[in-house]
Formats: sequence, C-alpha cells, structure tokens
Amino acid sequence: MNGKNNVFQPITTELVTKLRSMVGDNHFSTDPEVLRDHGHDETEDLLFMPEAVVWPGTVAELSAIMQLCHEERIPVTVRGGGSGLAGGALPIEGGLVLSMKRFDRILNIDDRNFQVTVEPGVVTETLQNTLQERGLYYPPDPSSRGWSFIGGNINTNAGGPRAVKYGVVKDHVLNLEVVLPGGEVIWTGANTLKNSTGYNLTQLLVGSEGTLGVVSKIVLKLQPLPTQQLLMLAPFRSAESACAAVAAIFQAGVTPSALEFMERSAIEWAVRYVGESPVPIGDDDAAHLLIEVDGFHAESLLADCETISRVLENFDCGEVFFADNDAQKTGLWKLRRNVAHAVKKNSIYKEEDTVVPRAELPVLLKTVKEIGARYGFESVCYGHAGDGNLHVNILRGDLDDKSWNEEVPKGIREIFALVKNLGGTLSGEHGVGYVQRPYMDIFFSETEMRLRREIKKVFDPNGILNPGKVI
Amino acid sequence: MNGKNNVFQPITTELVTKLRSMVGDNHFSTDPEVLRDHGHDETEDLLFMPEAVVWPGTVAELSAIMQLCHEERIPVTVRGGGSGLAGGALPIEGGLVLSMKRFDRILNIDDRNFQVTVEPGVVTETLQNTLQERGLYYPPDPSSRGWSFIGGNINTNAGGPRAVKYGVVKDHVLNLEVVLPGGEVIWTGANTLKNSTGYNLTQLLVGSEGTLGVVSKIVLKLQPLPTQQLLMLAPFRSAESACAAVAAIFQAGVTPSALEFMERSAIEWAVRYVGESPVPIGDDDAAHLLIEVDGFHAESLLADCETISRVLENFDCGEVFFADNDAQKTGLWKLRRNVAHAVKKNSIYKEEDTVVPRAELPVLLKTVKEIGARYGFESVCYGHAGDGNLHVNILRGDLDDKSWNEEVPKGIREIFALVKNLGGTLSGEHGVGYVQRPYMDIFFSETEMRLRREIKKVFDPNGILNPGKVI
Repeated sequence: MNGKNNVFQPITTELVTKLRSMVGDNHFSTDPEVLRDHGHDETEDLLFMPEAVVWPGTVAELSAIMQLCHEERIPVTVRGGGSGLAGGALPIEGGLVLSMKRFDRILNIDDRNFQVTVEPGVVTETLQNTLQERGLYYPPDPSSRGWSFIGGNINTNAGGPRAVKYGVVKDHVLNLEVVLPGGEVIWTGANTLKNSTGYNLTQLLVGSEGTLGVVSKIVLKLQPLPTQQLLMLAPFRSAESACAAVAAIFQAGVTPSALEFMERSAIEWAVRYVGESPVPIGDDDAAHLLIEVDGFHAESLLADCETISRVLENFDCGEVFFADNDAQKTGLWKLRRNVAHAVKKNSIYKEEDTVVPRAELPVLLKTVKEIGARYGFESVCYGHAGDGNLHVNILRGDLDDKSWNEEVPKGIREIFALVKNLGGTLSGEHGVGYVQRPYMDIFFSETEMRLRREIKKVFDPNGILNPGKVI
Repeated sequence: MNGKNNVFQPITTELVTKLRSMVGDNHFSTDPEVLRDHGHDETEDLLFMPEAVVWPGTVAELSAIMQLCHEERIPVTVRGGGSGLAGGALPIEGGLVLSMKRFDRILNIDDRNFQVTVEPGVVTETLQNTLQERGLYYPPDPSSRGWSFIGGNINTNAGGPRAVKYGVVKDHVLNLEVVLPGGEVIWTGANTLKNSTGYNLTQLLVGSEGTLGVVSKIVLKLQPLPTQQLLMLAPFRSAESACAAVAAIFQAGVTPSALEFMERSAIEWAVRYVGESPVPIGDDDAAHLLIEVDGFHAESLLADCETISRVLENFDCGEVFFADNDAQKTGLWKLRRNVAHAVKKNSIYKEEDTVVPRAELPVLLKTVKEIGARYGFESVCYGHAGDGNLHVNILRGDLDDKSWNEEVPKGIREIFALVKNLGGTLSGEHGVGYVQRPYMDIFFSETEMRLRREIKKVFDPNGILNPGKVI
C-alpha cells in the first residue's frame, strides 16, 4: 500500500505497542473489520485499507500521536463522520486513521457573545439542536448534518441550503485550536468578530481537508434563531427556466434563506425513496425550485414571498405550493435532503460539485445535458441554485467499464472546462479530496500548485497528514 | 536606512533608468518632496523616506517591476490611499514605494450575479456610490472611505460601522488577482459564493498588509441596497452602562446595521470639530450609543427600534434621539466619522485598535481607565461596540518624552494583556503594521510566528515586500 511513496513507513509492532499505550487498549485497533469500516466514506464504492485506527480522547493524546507519526513518518488520515463525497477521508496511503469520535463535547455556549466552543467530533445536527433550545442559530446545514461531524464540516468548508443567506462554514468560524504534525498546539485566531492581525490561519485551516493540522477545538459565531420561515415549491415546465428564475429573484431585492433546484428525476426519485410527498408532481413539471425565506417579522416575509411570486410568473412557472404547516415544511425538506440517497439507491454514480456565478446556471445545466448526450451518460442535477452550486450526479446505468472509466471522465473534463469559463470552480462544498484531483489542472496554474505544496510543507514538512489530498 | 537588513540593495542609477523605462518618466520619481509625501500615512507623526516612488499603470508593468525588485533585492512598499493608522504603508526599510493610484478603474459591474470587479486604486466611497446608483451595496465602510483605496481595505481587512451586520472586508472578497514578487500573476480563487478547493489563498491575502503579493484586481460580492434606515442616538449617564447595553441588544434578537460607542469627550470634541450637532449633548451624558437598523420593510425596522428602546431602559439611558430626516442622519454620522480627526486636532495620540467579545466591553473600558490613571495618561474611547471593537486613543497631552516613550507603552502592554485574557486580539481593523509590532508577543506564540515567517517565505523568498511588517 505504501509503495506509492517510499518516504512513509509501516506501523511496526513496536509502534503498535507505543500507540496502544498512549490511548489505552480500547481506543486502538488493527481488527480487519474495523479497518474496513474506516477505509471508505460516502464516495462512490472506493475502499482503501488503513493499517490501524486510533481514537484519542484528549488534546495531549492527539499531540503525542501526531509527534510520533511525524517522527516515524506514518501517514495519518483524520476522520470525522465519514459522510464525505470527495474521498477526503480515504486513507489512500494506508497508515493510521485518526478518528475524532471521542471529541464529542460542546464545551461552552456563550449566550452573551453569541459564540460556542465545540469539539470536532460533535454531530452537526446535535450541535444545531442544542443551540436551538437556547434560541441560538448556527446556520450551515449540509444534507449530511445528521451524521457528519462539525470538524469534518470545517475541513471541507461545507455549505448546505442556508449558505445562500448565511454563508458557508468559513463565514462562521472565529477560532480553531489545531494540533500540528510536530505535536505543537496553536490557536489560529481570537474569539472576536473582527481580526486584523496578519495572515488568517483560521481561514487557511478551514477547507484544508485535514492536510495541515488536526482541528481539536472550534469557536463558532452564532446568530439569533429566526422565529419565522415560509417555504414554497415552484414547478417549471423547463429546467432552464427554473435556473433562469434564480438570479431574477435576487435581482428583485430578495435574499431567500434557501433556494434549491431539483430537476424532475431528482424530485421524482426522492418521492419514491421517501414514499410520500406533501404535493403531487405534475406530468409537465420538468424541474422545481424550493424557496424559503426566514426572519423575525411575518409581514416582511409575506412581502418577500409576493415579490418572489411575481418574479416566478415571468419564467413559465406553474402553480406554486406554499407549505401551510410544519408537517408540510418537514415533508418538502425531507424530499430535498433525500435526493442524494435516492440517486445512490438507483445507480452507481459520480458526483460533481460544480459551482458558477448563479446567473450562469442555465448555460451550465444545458451544456451538462449536451455533453452527457455526446458521451452517452445520463445525469441527475440538483443543488443549491441560489449559490450557483449544482450537483451533477452522473449515473453509471448500463455503461460498461471502458465507458465509465475512460469516456465519462472526458465528459467531466468538458463540464469543468465550461465551469472554469463561466467563472466557477471545481467544488462548491464537497472538497477536492481524492476523486477531484484529476481535474485540478483545469483550475490551478503551476504557480498556484507550487504555493499550495509549499504551504503544506510549512505545516507538515514530512507530508504525513492526509497524503495525496488537495495538493 | 537599509542598514537594518544587509540583504537589501539600494536603488542604483542603473536601476532608476530601468524602472523609468518600464513606466515612463511621468510615473517614476526621486523628487525629495514626493518621497516625503510617500513616507508617511495617518499614523502618529512617523516618517520614513523611500528612495523612489513608482506609479505603474498595467499588470504587465507591475509584474516587470516586481520581478526586477525581487532579483535586485529592492524593498517594495505598496501604497494605497495612505489612510492607515498602524503604519502599514510606511517604507521603513527605504527602497521603492509602489503607488496603486493609477489602478483606478471599476472594470465590471455584474448586476446579474451581484459582483463587481475593481482595481485596487479605486477610492472606497467612489466604488460604493457608483454601485449605489445601480441599487447595489458593498457594505464595508471604514471611516476613511472618502480617501482610502479599496486595495488598502483588502490589505488591512478593514471594517467600519456596518461590519456588525454585514461583516468585514474579508466576508465580501470572492477572488483576487495578485502579482507575486517573482512577477507571476495568479488568481487566488473563483468568482463564486462557495469554494471548497483546498487552501484559501484569497483569505490568506486579505489582511496580509502587502507582505505576500500585490493585489491588482478584486472581485467583490455585493448585496441589494437596503431601502430603509432608522438611526438613533442614545445618551447614558455611565460609559460602562452604555457598553453593557450593547450585548443586551443582540440578546434581544436584534442585529443593528451599526452600533457605535462614543464616550463623552469623543462626541464633545467631534461636535466642536464639526461645528454643529443635530442634538445637544446633555451635561450628564457620559457616553452615547449611535444605533442604526436597516432593511427593506419599514414596519420590521420600527419593531426592531421598539425592542432596542425597551432594552436601553434597563441601562440608565436618557432620552433617545431619533433622526427624523436625512439631514439629521447625515449630521449624526458626520459626528461619528469625525471623532478621529477631532482627537488628532487636540493632541498627539497613540491609537490602539482593541477588540474583544462584545459582552466584555464594560470590563475593557473600565480597566483602560484604571490603567491610564496608574500610568498618568488620558484616553478617548469610541468605536464599533457591536463588534467589541474599541478604539483607545491615548493622548500625549503634557506628557514628557520619557513618559510618552517608556511609561505609556507599559500601560498599553497591560491593556493588551487584558484584551488577550478576555478572548480578544491586537487589532480589529487597522492591522499590525509598524506600530503594533512591539505587542505581538502578547498574542502570538513562537510556533505561530514561525508559521507566519515561513508562509511569508513561500510567497516572497527574498523578503522584499513591505519588509518588517506583520512578521
């Protein structure tokens, strides 16, 4: 497994003994079944076996493990909830998987300053629910929030539907405690809303996919919890019209708290997967927009909805369904959040996390379908349209190995070349990880790659942290 | 001047000829008066003479200049509007001042995607006014916006009153074109709202004070221009009560678009400096809060104001003045924006840009005064209270050289030690620059400083860019 990189060393019996003694017998394993469980995430059907798994419980243990692996040149892949869609947590060079599962405490909820200090192993939804009980709001809500860890969200700079109004994870992180490969522990910033003290190490760590350091504590900025939400589902006779309506809503002066696009197959498959829908899907509906506005004053939200409705009329929109009660709202969100699971159940697929300036969505969608027709693949498209973030799920269907492994990637390259031309990039919220590496050359010049490699070396001179990712 | 660092070389006659030929005779100068004009900014009374000033007009010229200075080891200090308060633009090692004055074009206003591409030499207020005419809003508005350059705002991660609701500069930057010391030109990101593609070079450049690269183009995120603002001025009998009210407003669920604190001397001096005030300052008023809410729906803003008024009643607040018309609003903002000028006119002063979690403001203010009493200095405090960002202006008054140069810095160290304990940091929006360097050791460990130095080396191996700043 380590043959790819001669620098890395295997975890010898002696090292196993050392690691065991650092964390205790219950928190270290070389059991093949355990290794298998920690060798994959939610990315396609990929599996890479690590040599061992460790579950540290304290920063001191984390620091000792990192120092040992740094000295002995053992690859270390940090693992959160394992919900990644780009293979960021795959231990592609073997070595040690470092699970953050035991770092599961919410350390301090500071109501007075609208801040929370949390360990990276807390499940995102658990954090959100705990805060909600205190009237506090942490907006970023990736679809995986029911099992993803907040530390993983930090490392991929996750997004989710509410990013369109509230920003992505990076916009909510104030400060990080980070364990460096040498074992040193630093804080990257301060617990303040403003900070102008030189290089922003906090933002450098956010989205670094576990390649620069191990995040051990997180200070997040919070907001007052909105008291009102209005949710509507708008059907369109053409998917391109639905996409075109997106930019027009913002141009009318409204910033929705969610603006999600689903083409027909996405919502249809989700309805079938979930088994119910608050509203029937019409025969002529080629796509839907799920639109939410939130805030503290009902009248303003009603006014926003009226503005949105007026905009939609210009885009060949059918009858808009307004969710009347919590059950209907939950039902609509359940559909949206289960699209990925529904697609996964239907077919092996490759997920491309395209993102462009939002007004370019119609061109992107149209071209994806044209390229698919040319290369012979079907795709299911949906995503965070308000952010210009379109998930393109390319279905394997009946494609043979040659088409799937050789032809489809050519089509994907064409899609990304277009994305680049439209001012977009390789990933909006999933990360580069393992599976998007082949397309990095489309977006990053040799100078940019050199800067990345050298920044990596500053933090991790022996290259042990999540080797083969990002750079 | 270059004696401090033997690596740097002087600008020889031969180099003068080369630089002149790159940009044309009109865009290069060694005239002593010009050098003097480019040897200071708005920081105290500091002056460092450069050897030459250059005004490039194109990215190609910029690139050629950088390459030459990199090869010849000439210090290069990039200069924007010269409004800095931390000495970030002072050419402390001599060398070349690179003025961005000719990069003054707004290149593309993209209404469809709420983005603008702009050159760094555009004056912030000019940009804001131009956008406003199109119904677009770029919120960050440092007090210097009438003459600061947008490029300087990027390099200090500037803030201003509206940051409390809309965030600081870093929250609005999507993408930067940067010329590196070797002459290479890169884009740091993409023109998208979401970006999860590894190390965030955009955020690394923001706030880097011209030490990593020269920003040559800027893509900013915009918002719909709010149509309504309500503004009020609340007087308090105690400055600490005013500070304590700040956190309570947010806890009541309201996020104002500005929440500014001025202690009595600040507003009194500003009234005297400006020569008028929309409202008389009462004899018992120890401090004021200037509070603004903005949005699109008048009723919601009125409801917010009612909530705020109810909160203020609990903090021994006097009669709140509501600005009835635009003239009164302009008048109140004019007072706030002129506090710094008024202080400057009254006394030589040192400005500390303290920032803490906002609920800690009362402790900070109280302790600043206690420390001042102990070390024998007076201070005028005011600032962006909603962000916990308190500008502490320490007045020279009648202090002799020994007190000013030796005793006062000891007091400042005590203030920053407290700031650190409260979870705060060295600068909220001005930057580290030249004058805050002596206090860096209070906030940054040796490991953090090592990371900074090595990151600097990745971008600028010969250390020519703004030497002696940030690291």
